[in-house]
Amino acid sequence: MLESGKPRDECGVFGVFGHPEAAKLTYFGLYALQHRGQESAGIASYQDGTLHAHKAMGLVPDIFDDDIIASLPGDTAIGQVRYSTTGGSNIVNTQPFVVRHNMRTYALAHNGNLVNAHILRKELEETGSIFQTTMDTEIFLHLLVKNLKLGFEGSLLKTVEKIKGAYSFVLLTSKGEMIGIKDPNGFRPLCLGKLDNGNYVLASETCALDLVEAEFVRQLDPGEIVIISKDGIRSIHMPVPEQKSFCIFEFIYFARPDSNIYGHNVYSMRKRMGQILARESHIDADLVMPFPDSGNYAAIGYAEHSALPFEMAMIRNHYVGRTFIQPSQTMRDFGVRVKLNPIKSVLEGKRIIIVEDSIIRGTTAKTRVKALRDLGVKEVHMRVSCPPHKFPCHYGIDFSSSGELVASDKSIDELRDYLGLDSLHYLSLQGLLESTNVPEPETMFCKACFDGCYPVAFDDSVTKDCLELM
Amino acid sequence: MLESGKPRDECGVFGVFGHPEAAKLTYFGLYALQHRGQESAGIASYQDGTLHAHKAMGLVPDIFDDDIIASLPGDTAIGQVRYSTTGGSNIVNTQPFVVRHNMRTYALAHNGNLVNAHILRKELEETGSIFQTTMDTEIFLHLLVKNLKLGFEGSLLKTVEKIKGAYSFVLLTSKGEMIGIKDPNGFRPLCLGKLDNGNYVLASETCALDLVEAEFVRQLDPGEIVIISKDGIRSIHMPVPEQKSFCIFEFIYFARPDSNIYGHNVYSMRKRMGQILARESHIDADLVMPFPDSGNYAAIGYAEHSALPFEMAMIRNHYVGRTFIQPSQTMRDFGVRVKLNPIKSVLEGKRIIIVEDSIIRGTTAKTRVKALRDLGVKEVHMRVSCPPHKFPCHYGIDFSSSGELVASDKSIDELRDYLGLDSLHYLSLQGLLESTNVPEPETMFCKACFDGCYPVAFDDSVTKDCLELM
Amino acid sequence: MLESGKPRDECGVFGVFGHPEAAKLTYFGLYALQHRGQESAGIASYQDGTLHAHKAMGLVPDIFDDDIIASLPGDTAIGQVRYSTTGGSNIVNTQPFVVRHNMRTYALAHNGNLVNAHILRKELEETGSIFQTTMDTEIFLHLLVKNLKLGFEGSLLKTVEKIKGAYSFVLLTSKGEMIGIKDPNGFRPLCLGKLDNGNYVLASETCALDLVEAEFVRQLDPGEIVIISKDGIRSIHMPVPEQKSFCIFEFIYFARPDSNIYGHNVYSMRKRMGQILARESHIDADLVMPFPDSGNYAAIGYAEHSALPFEMAMIRNHYVGRTFIQPSQTMRDFGVRVKLNPIKSVLEGKRIIIVEDSIIRGTTAKTRVKALRDLGVKEVHMRVSCPPHKFPCHYGIDFSSSGELVASDKSIDELRDYLGLDSLHYLSLQGLLESTNVPEPETMFCKACFDGCYPVAFDDSVTKDCLELM
Amino acid sequence: MLESGKPRDECGVFGVFGHPEAAKLTYFGLYALQHRGQESAGIASYQDGTLHAHKAMGLVPDIFDDDIIASLPGDTAIGQVRYSTTGGSNIVNTQPFVVRHNMRTYALAHNGNLVNAHILRKELEETGSIFQTTMDTEIFLHLLVKNLKLGFEGSLLKTVEKIKGAYSFVLLTSKGEMIGIKDPNGFRPLCLGKLDNGNYVLASETCALDLVEAEFVRQLDPGEIVIISKDGIRSIHMPVPEQKSFCIFEFIYFARPDSNIYGHNVYSMRKRMGQILARESHIDADLVMPFPDSGNYAAIGYAEHSALPFEMAMIRNHYVGRTFIQPSQTMRDFGVRVKLNPIKSVLEGKRIIIVEDSIIRGTTAKTRVKALRDLGVKEVHMRVSCPPHKFPCHYGIDFSSSGELVASDKSIDELRDYLGLDSLHYLSLQGLLESTNVPEPETMFCKACFDGCYPVAFDDSVTKDCLELM
Repeated sequence: MLESGKPRDECGVFGVFGHPEAAKLTYFGLYALQHRGQESAGIASYQDGTLHAHKAMGLVPDIFDDDIIASLPGDTAIGQVRYSTTGGSNIVNTQPFVVRHNMRTYALAHNGNLVNAHILRKELEETGSIFQTTMDTEIFLHLLVKNLKLGFEGSLLKTVEKIKGAYSFVLLTSKGEMIGIKDPNGFRPLCLGKLDNGNYVLASETCALDLVEAEFVRQLDPGEIVIISKDGIRSIHMPVPEQKSFCIFEFIYFARPDSNIYGHNVYSMRKRMGQILARESHIDADLVMPFPDSGNYAAIGYAEHSALPFEMAMIRNHYVGRTFIQPSQTMRDFGVRVKLNPIKSVLEGKRIIIVEDSIIRGTTAKTRVKALRDLGVKEVHMRVSCPPHKFPCHYGIDFSSSGELVASDKSIDELRDYLGLDSLHYLSLQGLLESTNVPEPETMFCKACFDGCYPVAFDDSVTKDCLELM
Repeated sequence: MLESGKPRDECGVFGVFGHPEAAKLTYFGLYALQHRGQESAGIASYQDGTLHAHKAMGLVPDIFDDDIIASLPGDTAIGQVRYSTTGGSNIVNTQPFVVRHNMRTYALAHNGNLVNAHILRKELEETGSIFQTTMDTEIFLHLLVKNLKLGFEGSLLKTVEKIKGAYSFVLLTSKGEMIGIKDPNGFRPLCLGKLDNGNYVLASETCALDLVEAEFVRQLDPGEIVIISKDGIRSIHMPVPEQKSFCIFEFIYFARPDSNIYGHNVYSMRKRMGQILARESHIDADLVMPFPDSGNYAAIGYAEHSALPFEMAMIRNHYVGRTFIQPSQTMRDFGVRVKLNPIKSVLEGKRIIIVEDSIIRGTTAKTRVKALRDLGVKEVHMRVSCPPHKFPCHYGIDFSSSGELVASDKSIDELRDYLGLDSLHYLSLQGLLESTNVPEPETMFCKACFDGCYPVAFDDSVTKDCLELM
Repeated sequence: MLESGKPRDECGVFGVFGHPEAAKLTYFGLYALQHRGQESAGIASYQDGTLHAHKAMGLVPDIFDDDIIASLPGDTAIGQVRYSTTGGSNIVNTQPFVVRHNMRTYALAHNGNLVNAHILRKELEETGSIFQTTMDTEIFLHLLVKNLKLGFEGSLLKTVEKIKGAYSFVLLTSKGEMIGIKDPNGFRPLCLGKLDNGNYVLASETCALDLVEAEFVRQLDPGEIVIISKDGIRSIHMPVPEQKSFCIFEFIYFARPDSNIYGHNVYSMRKRMGQILARESHIDADLVMPFPDSGNYAAIGYAEHSALPFEMAMIRNHYVGRTFIQPSQTMRDFGVRVKLNPIKSVLEGKRIIIVEDSIIRGTTAKTRVKALRDLGVKEVHMRVSCPPHKFPCHYGIDFSSSGELVASDKSIDELRDYLGLDSLHYLSLQGLLESTNVPEPETMFCKACFDGCYPVAFDDSVTKDCLELM
Repeated sequence: MLESGKPRDECGVFGVFGHPEAAKLTYFGLYALQHRGQESAGIASYQDGTLHAHKAMGLVPDIFDDDIIASLPGDTAIGQVRYSTTGGSNIVNTQPFVVRHNMRTYALAHNGNLVNAHILRKELEETGSIFQTTMDTEIFLHLLVKNLKLGFEGSLLKTVEKIKGAYSFVLLTSKGEMIGIKDPNGFRPLCLGKLDNGNYVLASETCALDLVEAEFVRQLDPGEIVIISKDGIRSIHMPVPEQKSFCIFEFIYFARPDSNIYGHNVYSMRKRMGQILARESHIDADLVMPFPDSGNYAAIGYAEHSALPFEMAMIRNHYVGRTFIQPSQTMRDFGVRVKLNPIKSVLEGKRIIIVEDSIIRGTTAKTRVKALRDLGVKEVHMRVSCPPHKFPCHYGIDFSSSGELVASDKSIDELRDYLGLDSLHYLSLQGLLESTNVPEPETMFCKACFDGCYPVAFDDSVTKDCLELM
């Protein structure tokens, strides 16, 4: 089992090579990727053989200002946004992670999770390595410098041979090279873009390319190492398995709706999930509504297919995210109302269908359903635009133990009762794959969180039996 | 003419009488009214003959914490959120405004704008009054204490006799009374609610009652003064004109969609505006979309009536509101993209109808339309859910000179070209009135911003001729 | 009796006329006067008929930065540092106090205390004035505008005729005049200086003139109003009593040692107090030491006259003033040690004479004496460089009730025992007057805190009998 | 040569074993040692096999509050205050430095400087170590874990065998041991104290023991490793050279005056330096004065021996340390006056002797002397209570290159003229040694900064010829 409390590697990475305002572009790239990690952010830049870095806890606009950007000179820079555990001392776990070795400096930004991290760490410690962080990123860099006698590329290849799991790295060296690395299964997104001036950008999602007005070139291949330097761009390819394992949850929830993944727009895919969900599980009702904002797109698709009215009958409060004083004891549904404002006159006495993108712990959904009932809603039906989450993710999404997953030990009927619903229906795995519009979707995705079929063996090296979901 | 640069009185007010956590309830009341004013906020509380106050620039959750709430003891409190000009020194213009006179203290929160403020101020100064602020609120209190020889109620009546314009006041005295006052035309909303414990709440909108779980009792009548004290509740009524003048822009844009005004839900009214707009001005297109969030509801109504697909094809960025580093010069559409993320694959090559709630200056709309064109949208049609804004507001909404109103001197065709649209259509005034579902709507609303027909003469006392819009 | 809890007016004021960096010079003037008030500060500047102001709670260097100084344009500015009660909401009690009246603006900075404030306030309120603060400053401005029909000068004279007590004002008007006003008794210091460019500066103490490199011209006379404008400088004089009442406590403790008052240097006077104290009360001992820093100068004088070694045997901690975590229960003398570091090897087994400038409440002295005893000091003798403080001050120093004064109801012997001393001796009033080197000192000073002989009747208008101290 | 810009290791360290409020005691220990490093501070605590840490840039009282102390549980803790280069990103160079290795955690606080750091770092990097900081501390920990196969103590001994230079370490392990280590030459102070409850404390100076009310036990011996654990206390001793090398500059300037070093009080020694300085170099004058605060004690000794009046004729400003707005161009001596207030009436026309503890760059002294001349001082003589600083320190004091030392290439006469003095005299090395009262002082101290005689060869391994100063 994974260590409990291990900081999860939900992250966004970005890098730009050869732009006079590299740090500023990286700032905007990170701003566009803010949804991938809201607890810390950092930028490292390269100028004349030296790396400069600034990182801190908080949101991108709160961490950087003009003075800080000015302190990150040079025309190449990388950055990261990150979700990790809270607390002042965890500033050590911010990224890009910067180390010095033999007069060279390396800065590394990482999105993913290594499943053999604890084994590698043990091996390294036995040969005298010491660690300052609990991040996989530190392991990668230890391995990299250990093998530098093989040359830089040789060491890179040796290093990726040893690490197992999900990783999309952006690496910056004090020789001014920017390197993008994607694991052989291709779990996490990482794409290449091109600036007006012909130089390259790396980004977790295409939405970051759009904001900095870089043209999308392509997704990195699984197992690709792309090296960008003054000498141009070239790629090395690791051996890859036949079955690809792109994280399907990126489509369902994680990616920004205006991003494209493998040529397919996320917004459109989410709408299609809603349409197929309606096809699979229609029920008569007065209206369809999302819990905003993550359920919006599938709900629009559901409403369209079912020809029921779409209503934004719970409105998101714009000031959520700030810290609040705890409510008075007399205020019952405060936890719901402070985030969502339900429109009583639209909801009262109605039969409603709520379209949700996914249910993880179920606690929020349960509370909201109760608040709707208290308001006088007549029937509450829920439709979820993916199959039930029954298995933890070991590749970088923050539901790492099955105990956190409300669907792990409950039947659909039990869940329906637990959540207080009149009916509950999940999108089938087949429906989900169909919605992606990707050809041969069975060979493309990691869907371990639904079927327990883990593409890369983790930890005690035993692959569980997979569920048959199709 | 009004002074240029005069702080506008867009505000929300709230008050609670007789609750052991009065300041905390007021905090939540203000939080629910945050959309009415985001530049400053304040709370004043009453305990044992003494008033306590705290006010500051910023958002409600940023201004108050548990310690500050604890420093506002007592079971009666009032508060205000406010939009005014920025700048550290303008802390003096925050509210509630607190003054001392003859061992008594008064705290006042105000939503509205007095049209004879400069005349009253001049008169007061001639008899020796000095002013610390530029707020109408200060004038009200000067007048109040001048006439206290008539008794407190006598003085209140004398004072409202002198002031002209739009005002919804909540007043707290060091005798522990809470008073709500609405001007005879009833420009601004102010409603009465009741707590579980039988005590009363005053609030600009019903959404604030909902959050603190107070039951809605009724809107204050135009010209009503409601006095709440240990002796109970009673009302005094000023003489009122036949024609009412409730601000119709509250329905169109200003109020929160989950609020009810005069028994009518704002969300539903906005949807109806969209439906009637579709009825009046339908054109064939591929999709209907809002500029989120203010256009959402009318767009849903429009799509429903026209049976066109509703798409959220520009997605609002959640981190807007924070300060940003200025973009690189190479980033062209940054101003749009930093706030809204357009979904290219949904928009490219399409004929789209954008439904907007209103167009004031037109600059934002113009930039957004251009960004959509740059993205490859084929046709851009705009439908606006109210008539053109041709006249400034003198009753508390922040478009105080006609120079700020793009429609003031342009025909619809000129506007269409200016905004870069393929077609442009506004909701008719009749359609707008119909959408409110209010009986005899012609006698109920101030619609001066559309027709220049000002219900209360301002300044140089000459009422302009009204436009015939019906 | 004075209102309890009334904010005390310990303050420093400063003004500069006709310098292109007026606000910046005022900043430095206030910085030099920081010892006169550490709780808030503010600056108001004049440019082209408009006044600009910034004020806040805190120390001068923490309140102002380059941007704020830049927001205070113009070549005339005034400022104030202030000691008052703490708390966020007391931002209203900061100065300069700015008011508007009849298109004119006035900014006023005040050092002192009006003894008839409550009577004047009552009178004003009866004619309709309202108050926002509890400061005397506001009363002055109300009176000023009430009488403007007499002309500005006429109104000034009428106003000072009505107010009683201690005041040194610096007033700035939106006509660009800077006015200094000192009460007829001359309680508080206020001096005139001249810049290189021939223009004038007003300051509470000469040390502020030194820092901005202005030449000292003279102290304002008691009862002088000096008006500085584009037309030059001129003075008006109010009628004054024969007996002057300069606060002798400024010499003893309050003023900065490098200031000169009435031509006499404060440092030298304090040394002389120590010398005369030694002459009056010498006792054999091993060393003389101060409680730093306020006792330093008298201690040097005492050591010099007595030919005993001067030792800095308790060393002041530089980081005092910052907030501390409360100490562990096991740490006994923490309260002393956190501020002063006693040198055990210098003190152990010794007979020591501590020279203090004054004893107000006695609590700090008592704790320190105990800490010295615990350290193994053999004999502790204390010599105080002024007579016992037996009476409260009503003219602007913060010991406003006799209950706060440990000497008010104790004999010297009782005090010695209370403080845990082997011997205690105060400087005689005659010795104190002699130390000032001022000719005819009996006619020059307010010494009411020693003898209860109040030069200006306060409140219930009954002058107490004075003690015979000479 | 040392790397230029290398962060200097001026520091204070502290540790407490076996006290329920270990982190709080450490906080106070660091507060007492604040003078040894004002740029960052940190605390690490041990509880049940886990280390907790918090560190940040800034002063101790600004970094820690009750919540942070509460987040550092356990009955053993260590801490450090540090002077290093500035800048946000240097948070990585704060201490205690915490690393993880083989399920164990180590926290290390360091005072000193390793002279073979760059060689060790190179060796370590060649075997694959990576570094995150530029601190010697990191090297120590790399070496420690490399040799853990020798057992913990074996590894400690192996590690100290390899490192050369000045070091006083406090180490905390996740087995709950606290270890103090002093280099064989004994450059930096580190002493042992005992709490009331019988448990032990380690501290750079005795003043920290005093504040937490621990009894002084003894200085650690040069080359001593003291291991404190649940099993009690025991020491290991490295081989040591005959000649000891305690830093004599600790006596002259660095240590707090209320500390004792090797049984001798620092305050008394500084007074004695002043007395011997007067004996060696007396000149007739009107007064003796220090530049406060560092020169105070030698000046008192000088005045006492020469029977000249001691005057505090330049008074230190209490608010120094805060950031200031840059002065107006017209303000000439601002740089002096903002820190020190000279008393003109005491100084004008006088012949004065300034006693300084040391002159490093000479720039401050030069400016101050000029300011005194401008004030009208007749003669300015300077007496310095140590010999001229001619050689850089490689053992942890921040004057690391001879270019920074004004005396390195100037004769006394040249210096006198450079500083604008009438006469200049330094204390002789013999006089300095005599003042320490230490028996056989020639064998006890490092005085390399005066005579270039470096006790431990640094870098290019060539010991320079020493100056003959005696």
